[in-house]
Amino acid sequence: MPEQWNNERLSGQIAFLTEIDKLKNVLRKTFILDSSRLENTAEHSWHASVIAMLLIEHANEPGLDLNRIVRMLLLHDIVEIDAGDTFAYDTQGYEDKAEREQAAANRLFGMLPADQRDEWMVLWREFEDGETRESQYAAAIDRLHPVINNYYTGGYSWLKHGIVRSQVVKRLSIVSSVSDTLWQFTLEILQRAVDQGLLLDDPVKGE
Amino acid sequence: MPEQWNNERLSGQIAFLTEIDKLKNVLRKTFILDSSRLENTAEHSWHASVIAMLLIEHANEPGLDLNRIVRMLLLHDIVEIDAGDTFAYDTQGYEDKAEREQAAANRLFGMLPADQRDEWMVLWREFEDGETRESQYAAAIDRLHPVINNYYTGGYSWLKHGIVRSQVVKRLSIVSSVSDTLWQFTLEILQRAVDQGLLLDDPVKGE
Repeated sequence: MPEQWNNERLSGQIAFLTEIDKLKNVLRKTFILDSSRLENTAEHSWHASVIAMLLIEHANEPGLDLNRIVRMLLLHDIVEIDAGDTFAYDTQGYEDKAEREQAAANRLFGMLPADQRDEWMVLWREFEDGETRESQYAAAIDRLHPVINNYYTGGYSWLKHGIVRSQVVKRLSIVSSVSDTLWQFTLEILQRAVDQGLLLDDPVKGE
Repeated sequence: MPEQWNNERLSGQIAFLTEIDKLKNVLRKTFILDSSRLENTAEHSWHASVIAMLLIEHANEPGLDLNRIVRMLLLHDIVEIDAGDTFAYDTQGYEDKAEREQAAANRLFGMLPADQRDEWMVLWREFEDGETRESQYAAAIDRLHPVINNYYTGGYSWLKHGIVRSQVVKRLSIVSSVSDTLWQFTLEILQRAVDQGLLLDDPVKGE
């Protein structure tokens, strides 16, 4: 039973905000840019939110709701507190990812007052379902961030896991549907990564 | 000279977003809640942004612009990359804090395309000047976060630096002007901190 405060709504909210502190201990597969250590998911959530603000002008669709985008990005990964970080190219991990994350969302958002729980769950589901323009833009940024990260840390995570260019292109394909400019940039940074030996190129067919 | 990309605006934006990665290495005076290590400023910026979303219903003033509040909180501390984290109760450090942070803002936002640099500088100054309702709410959350943090990590930072209750009350006074509910909570958590020996009480006058 979490600590109770005089204001009942606030008791649930304080319990939630202290619980999500644990996101600072969930480690991702990418390094921070000085390569000194792995990045954690709280840091990634901050960085992705800033990047979303920064690059919104490049969205093909004008008038996206930045407030909803940023709120989605701030919250989208808190389920990793229970479900852990699933590596983007881990096929096996993805098999039960949705189930594990839904259970985590139920527990974590369940700490909030009921109306806020419902509202935040809707926001989290919007990101997961990826059917709105805002959630697609948010997902594009969420996937672009580790690519930039990998490029500037010597391709560590790509090389370690034997990732080839076409896998990254496929994972980043959401970028092509939200921004021509960012898609050109994505292809450009992957080409430079391949040229510099930071990312394996695809095997030539028939060889 | 940062790396250039085919899109000129994007070159400045990518340079900026990689530069601010350094915020993940700026350490604060507070621990993360499992007390395993100090919190860094990128993590704090994420957490404060989520807390701002979470508690906005408690603002006295209805209809605050949450989008501007969150954008301010995401950006407000990036100047610490150059200027460092100034401890809230460090009187000497505060003497040249404004000057050091302005120089940092000039350098960091100066990496952006000119129109975006100006827009983000305005947002950063709004937070610093604290004259709008939104910046006051953002500042209240920014100051409440380490109080909750200190309370749940055994008052470590308060005790280490010999902070007494009235210093915290004074620093948190901005909360009283933005939310009656959050002010009551602030006084309540400080009372519990004093009762549990996590925060020194003020010396009784005349003793």
